[in-house]
Amino acid sequence: MSRPLRVVIVGGVAAGPKVASKVIRLCQDAEVTVVEKGRLLSYAGCGLPYYVSGVVKEQAELMSTPVGTVRDSVFFQNVKNVKVLNETEAIEVDRAGKRIQVRDLAQGTQSWLDYDKLVLATGARPVVPPIPGADLDNVFTLQGVHDAEGIRTVLAQDKARDVVIVGGGLIGVEITEALVQRGCRVTMVEMMSQTLRILDPDMVRLVEQHMESHGVRVLTDTRLEKIEGDRAVQAVQTSAGPMPADMVVLAIGVRPNVTLAQAAGLEIGSTGAIKVDDHMQTSDPDIYAAGDCVECKDLMTGKPCFVPLGSTANKQGRVAAVNVCGGQDRFPGVLGSTVCKVFDFCVARTGLGESAAREEGFDVVTVLTPAPDKAHFMPQAKVLMLKLIADRQTGKLLGAQAVGPGAGDKRIDVVAMALTAGLTADQLANADLCYAPPYAPAMDNIITAANVVKNKMEGHLEGVGSAEVHRMLEAKEDFVFLDVRSPGEYEQVRLPGSTLIPLGALRGRLDELPKDKEVVAFCKISLRGYEAALILKAAGFQKVRVMDGGLVMWPFEKAT
Amino acid sequence: MSRPLRVVIVGGVAAGPKVASKVIRLCQDAEVTVVEKGRLLSYAGCGLPYYVSGVVKEQAELMSTPVGTVRDSVFFQNVKNVKVLNETEAIEVDRAGKRIQVRDLAQGTQSWLDYDKLVLATGARPVVPPIPGADLDNVFTLQGVHDAEGIRTVLAQDKARDVVIVGGGLIGVEITEALVQRGCRVTMVEMMSQTLRILDPDMVRLVEQHMESHGVRVLTDTRLEKIEGDRAVQAVQTSAGPMPADMVVLAIGVRPNVTLAQAAGLEIGSTGAIKVDDHMQTSDPDIYAAGDCVECKDLMTGKPCFVPLGSTANKQGRVAAVNVCGGQDRFPGVLGSTVCKVFDFCVARTGLGESAAREEGFDVVTVLTPAPDKAHFMPQAKVLMLKLIADRQTGKLLGAQAVGPGAGDKRIDVVAMALTAGLTADQLANADLCYAPPYAPAMDNIITAANVVKNKMEGHLEGVGSAEVHRMLEAKEDFVFLDVRSPGEYEQVRLPGSTLIPLGALRGRLDELPKDKEVVAFCKISLRGYEAALILKAAGFQKVRVMDGGLVMWPFEKAT
Repeated sequence: MSRPLRVVIVGGVAAGPKVASKVIRLCQDAEVTVVEKGRLLSYAGCGLPYYVSGVVKEQAELMSTPVGTVRDSVFFQNVKNVKVLNETEAIEVDRAGKRIQVRDLAQGTQSWLDYDKLVLATGARPVVPPIPGADLDNVFTLQGVHDAEGIRTVLAQDKARDVVIVGGGLIGVEITEALVQRGCRVTMVEMMSQTLRILDPDMVRLVEQHMESHGVRVLTDTRLEKIEGDRAVQAVQTSAGPMPADMVVLAIGVRPNVTLAQAAGLEIGSTGAIKVDDHMQTSDPDIYAAGDCVECKDLMTGKPCFVPLGSTANKQGRVAAVNVCGGQDRFPGVLGSTVCKVFDFCVARTGLGESAAREEGFDVVTVLTPAPDKAHFMPQAKVLMLKLIADRQTGKLLGAQAVGPGAGDKRIDVVAMALTAGLTADQLANADLCYAPPYAPAMDNIITAANVVKNKMEGHLEGVGSAEVHRMLEAKEDFVFLDVRSPGEYEQVRLPGSTLIPLGALRGRLDELPKDKEVVAFCKISLRGYEAALILKAAGFQKVRVMDGGLVMWPFEKAT
Repeated sequence: MSRPLRVVIVGGVAAGPKVASKVIRLCQDAEVTVVEKGRLLSYAGCGLPYYVSGVVKEQAELMSTPVGTVRDSVFFQNVKNVKVLNETEAIEVDRAGKRIQVRDLAQGTQSWLDYDKLVLATGARPVVPPIPGADLDNVFTLQGVHDAEGIRTVLAQDKARDVVIVGGGLIGVEITEALVQRGCRVTMVEMMSQTLRILDPDMVRLVEQHMESHGVRVLTDTRLEKIEGDRAVQAVQTSAGPMPADMVVLAIGVRPNVTLAQAAGLEIGSTGAIKVDDHMQTSDPDIYAAGDCVECKDLMTGKPCFVPLGSTANKQGRVAAVNVCGGQDRFPGVLGSTVCKVFDFCVARTGLGESAAREEGFDVVTVLTPAPDKAHFMPQAKVLMLKLIADRQTGKLLGAQAVGPGAGDKRIDVVAMALTAGLTADQLANADLCYAPPYAPAMDNIITAANVVKNKMEGHLEGVGSAEVHRMLEAKEDFVFLDVRSPGEYEQVRLPGSTLIPLGALRGRLDELPKDKEVVAFCKISLRGYEAALILKAAGFQKVRVMDGGLVMWPFEKAT
C-alpha cells in the first residue's frame, strides 16, 4: 500500500475499541482514529449494576485491562497507536468524499476526517418513555458511567429508600438486585404480563418468586403513568395505583443509535438497527458497523433480530476489523444466548423459546427437568431448573432455558454449541460431557433433559404443564391428581386436590384408582411421577399424564 | 409377548441398576434380576474420595436417590419391581442354554437363572502391583465402600500421619486431596514422568505445583519397590529411596473385569475390555454389556479405547436397556472428557492431547490462554488456564485442556460439544455463548482461545512453549527474551535472562533491540507479548515469537 490505511471508528465503548485494536494488530501502519462523544472510553457497560451495588468498588476497574491499566486516550495512543478523539461528536458522513465531520464538544470546533474505511459503532441508547416527570431529579436510565455515578450519589446521601424500577428486562433485574443489596425497597413495574421476556412464562415465574423472596415487589401488567415530584421524584402513578419513590430507574429497553447512519443514507433493517451483511459491511462497501447499533441474523430462524450484547459487539468488532484490513471473516449470527444473575439464581437461555418455536411452525416438545447441578450427595450441589425445547418430528434441538441457584450458564452454553451445530436430542443425550461429583451428576442435567425429550418423542411420557393442571383443578375437572412421593415429603408440603400413593406402594394399591378417569401423576421433580405413569399405563389406565417438573415447577398455592 | 421377557443383569453398582430401571420402564412386565457379588447396590463409586475426606458425611448418602431413599434390595423390589440377588456371584454362563449359574455367597448354594437377554455390567477392578507387602494392613485400593470405610477407620484412630499414594491418576489425585484435608502428610509416587496423563506435560506441571503448594510431595519417575511392615505398613521402598508410611493407597489404575465374559467365549477387544457394538451388544446377540467392563470407540480416532467412567456407564446402560427391550438405540463413543477437582483447581480435558493429536497425523496448532474466567473486574473472577488443540490445515478442533481455580469444566464441556459436531476454531470463535460479568468475560475464555488458534493459523502469531524457552536459556542461545509488562509487574516477579521494555514504550525504544537476533516476547499471559511481536515484525524484526501463555505458564525458576 502506498500510503497507510486510514480507518475512522465512531464509538469508543465496546465494538469500537475492539475494531481499533484488531486493525492495528493486523495492519501496524494503519492510521486509526476513534471518535467518541463521551469522555470515557472502552468501559464495561455490563458491569454498571455491579458498580452500583458496590461489588465493583472503583469506576476505574470498569475501564481497566485485566492487569489494571486504565484504557484512556494515552493508553490507546501509546500502547495501541490509536488516536482517540473523545468528547467529540460525529455529525455527518460525506460518503462520496469519504470523510466524516466531527465536532469537538469542549472547543465547539468542527473539522473533517478523511477515511478509507469507516466503522460505525454508535451503540444503543435507552428508551425514555414520554411520561410526565421523566426529567425530574433522581430519575435515571442506566446507559453510561455517569448514570451509575448519579445513582451512587443518591445512595450515598441515603436519599433512596423507595425505588421504582420501570421495566423487568435484563437491566431492570440486574439493577434491582444491586439496589436491594444497597438497602432500598424496590418495586418493579412491568407493562407486560411477565418480566424477563428471554424466558417462557413457566420459567419466569420461578425468577419472579425468587425476587419476591428477596423483598422485591414485582408488578406485572402494570403501566407507569406519571412521575411526580417537586424537583426530585417523590412518587409515581401507575395503573396499579400510586406509590412512593425516592428514585426511579427507567429500564424499558434500548434502541439502536442509527442517527448518523440514517442521515448518511445507509440501509436500516426491519428491526430499526443498521443492516449489515455477514462481513459486517453496511450498504456502503467502505462503511462497516458493529455492536449494539446493528441488527444480526437469528441463527434459528434466519430472520433479522436486534440483540445488543457486549459479547456480540466484541465478536463483530473483530470480524469488521479483519475485513477492513482486506481479510475475509464472517459473523454468522446469534442464538439469543443470554445469562443474568438474579440474587442467588442464575437465569440463562439460548435459542427459541416455546412460543417462538411454535410460531416458526415446529411441532414442539418441551421438557422441564429440575435436579441438583452436581452429584446430589455433594454439599455444594444446588438445584437447577432446566427447560429443553425440541422439534418432535426430528428431535432437532431448538432452545433451552435455565433458572435456579445451580450452574445454568454451563448447561445453556452446552446447548448453544449444540444449536450452533444443529444437533438432535439424541446426539446431546450421548454427548461425552465431563463428570466428577463436584461438577455434575453422573447423568448431567442437560443429558437427562435430552433423554426426557426422547421419552416424550417415543410416546413413553406425556407431559402436562403445572399451569394447565392448575386450570383443570380450578375448573373442577374430574381427574386424579396423583402424588407419588413419600408420606414424609407429603407431610412437609402438598398440592391442593392431590391424592397420595407413594411410588413404592403403587403396584399394590392400583385398585384404589379408577381406571376410567384421567390420572396426572407427579412427585418432587416428576421422575417418580414418570415411573408411576408407566406402571398405570401397563395396568390398563387409559389416560395418564405426568406433571412436567413436578412440585418444583408448581408456582401456585401449596399446603404446608 | 406370550410370557414376560426375562432379563438377568450381572453387576449392581452403576450400569447394572441403570439397565434394570430402564428395562422396567420400557417393559413393565419384564422379569428383571440383578446379580451382585457385593452386599451394597447402586452406590456412587466416584463419591468415595469425598466420603474419605468427610465432605460426604454418611455412607448412606452415596447410595440414596436425590430425595434420600436408600437404593437397597427392598427399594429395587418395591419401587422398581426388580429382583436383586446381592452377595451372589455369577460363576458361569451357559450361552447355548441361555442360563447363568450363580452362587449365594452366604449360603454357599448354587443355582441357574434362565434369561432371554443377559447384560454384563461387571465393572473394573483396581490393579494391585505384584509388590512385596501389598497385602499388609493399611494398604488400600479405592474400589468399593469397604475400602473407604477401611481408610476412614485408620484415620479415625489417628494412625495415618504419613501416607503414600501410589499412582498419580484421577483416583490418586482425588484421594490425595481427601487425605491432606484429613491432616495426613501425603507423598505421591508416580512411575511415569508426569501425574495425570489426561493432561499434556505443560498443563500438568501447573497441577503438580498446586499439589505441592498444599504440602503434597510429588515424586514422578519414581517406582514403588516394596511395602514394609510387621502386620501393618510402616514404610515403603521406592526407586527414590525409603520413606515412612502409616498407610498406602494403591491407585495405579483399573482393569476391566472380564472373567465371566472370557469364560463364556465372548469377544474381548484389544484394550482387554469386552467388545461391544454401538448397540452395546457383545459377540453373542443375546448378551449385552455396559459400563467399566466394556471398551468404547474413541470418537476422535475411531479406535477402541478403555475409559471407565460413571457417566459413560449410565449412558451405555440406558442404550443397552432400550435394545434389550427390542428398541434401536446407539451409543456413539467417547471423547475422553474428564474433570477432577484438585484442591482449589478444576482440572479438565476433552478430545486429543497434543502428542496424541500428532500421533494421529494432524499438523497440530496449540494455544495456551490464561485469563480470568469471569469479567476481570468481578471479585469472584478466578484464573483459568486453557489449552486448545486444532488442526492447522482445516482449523478442526481436536481437543482442549483446562487447569486452574476458574470454571474449566464449563469450557471443556463447550469444546466437547464442538468436538461432537466436528466444528472448527472459526465456528467456535463466533459461537453465541452466554455473557454477563458474573459468569464470563465479554470474550469468553474459550472464544479467545479459538481466536488465538485463528491468529496462529493465519501466521499472525508464532508461539513457543515455556519449556523450549527454558531450554534455549539453559543452552545460552543468543536471543532477546523480551518482557513487555509494566515496571511494577517486573518489580514483583521476573524471569531470568529477560529484558524489560513495557509495551507502551516499545515503539519508541525499538533501537535498543538488535534486529538480527531472535526475539521471544512475553507478558503475564502473552496478550501484550503478542502485540509487541506484531510491532517488532512491522518494524522489520526477522524472527519474533511469543511465549505461549506468558509468565503464568512458566513452571521454572522466577526471581522475586
